[in-house]
Amino acid sequence: MQGFNTMIKQTEIQLSGYKRGYHLITSDISRAFTEWPETGILNILVKHTSAGITINENADPSVRSDFKSFIDKLVPENDPVYTHILEGDDDMPAHLKASLIGQSITIPVTNYRLNLGTWQGIYFCEFRNYGGNRNLVLTLYY
Amino acid sequence: MQGFNTMIKQTEIQLSGYKRGYHLITSDISRAFTEWPETGILNILVKHTSAGITINENADPSVRSDFKSFIDKLVPENDPVYTHILEGDDDMPAHLKASLIGQSITIPVTNYRLNLGTWQGIYFCEFRNYGGNRNLVLTLYY
Amino acid sequence: MQGFNTMIKQTEIQLSGYKRGYHLITSDISRAFTEWPETGILNILVKHTSAGITINENADPSVRSDFKSFIDKLVPENDPVYTHILEGDDDMPAHLKASLIGQSITIPVTNYRLNLGTWQGIYFCEFRNYGGNRNLVLTLYY
Repeated sequence: MQGFNTMIKQTEIQLSGYKRGYHLITSDISRAFTEWPETGILNILVKHTSAGITINENADPSVRSDFKSFIDKLVPENDPVYTHILEGDDDMPAHLKASLIGQSITIPVTNYRLNLGTWQGIYFCEFRNYGGNRNLVLTLYY
Repeated sequence: MQGFNTMIKQTEIQLSGYKRGYHLITSDISRAFTEWPETGILNILVKHTSAGITINENADPSVRSDFKSFIDKLVPENDPVYTHILEGDDDMPAHLKASLIGQSITIPVTNYRLNLGTWQGIYFCEFRNYGGNRNLVLTLYY
Repeated sequence: MQGFNTMIKQTEIQLSGYKRGYHLITSDISRAFTEWPETGILNILVKHTSAGITINENADPSVRSDFKSFIDKLVPENDPVYTHILEGDDDMPAHLKASLIGQSITIPVTNYRLNLGTWQGIYFCEFRNYGGNRNLVLTLYY
């Protein structure tokens, strides 16, 4: 609750080998800084236009597989309105999903850890079939 | 416009009794801090995976009821792709809506108040039929 | 990586003349501050309930036109569930799109510039047919 003079730390991490789908990366994020501040906020940006980041249920893997099934149906491949089709059937849907789910989240830090709810985890959302390495910028204010 | 040495304040509020739907909570947020800084940003995180937060029209209640009607149709209950069904028909749709609408927003503070547009208000989005108490973390940088 | 005492700068810009659709405004944002810090974050809020902001592909204009085609189909005009219809056929869909795409983004600043991926640009999303002037608040922490 008390005010402090604040500080900033920034780092970049690379995720690799994630296949198309929704993946829990809470522990990857927690390991990105060796020390966490007592109070602060963390901003995460996914530096790609066909991947996203969100917060959702961290326990039952069926939630993550249902995300894939439902969002793939909501934003289908080969929709007749698409004209941007040269980079593959999964490309334009991936761009749309990235903006519907989002590429950037901001999470509070409290008592030296990410202040997420009990059931909340951080999802990395890979929307391409073969997305390759993905870079995330993490900026910590405290 | 001038730079300052910045400070941080953080608090948590609990919302209770909100039924499924979209609810204006701008005044609850404004009351969460007794003093607001001249210049800053406020981050709000909803600590749940079946509720969300967004900014939208603060005047006509029909906007909020149309949000419920339309988003309930966009992300229906009992979609055949769902496998995560043990926690109720409203559970998996609530997870999906939480990530489509979002669980975290960041709002500027200017001249000692939230710097929203004339018609903007903060919506708390309850996606469960009986969501119970909901906790929000508010972090203020200034 | 080093910690500093942080500072804050805030300004407001006005966009005008953008027609309904998705528009690259990365250079407008870059020009909004004459000097950028070595390390920081930038928060942008669109102060309207029928326009949005997101990050997506900055090269091929067909991505932006496919955004318009697809999102217009996802959130159609004249949906029978709408009751908020007095402000025009494009009004209620615009409110819904604003909350699905989002009105606020936060982007890291690194080495004196916005730290976006190679293919990432900032999209201003005008959801009304005649949106008029649009105001954005930019808050820079460093």
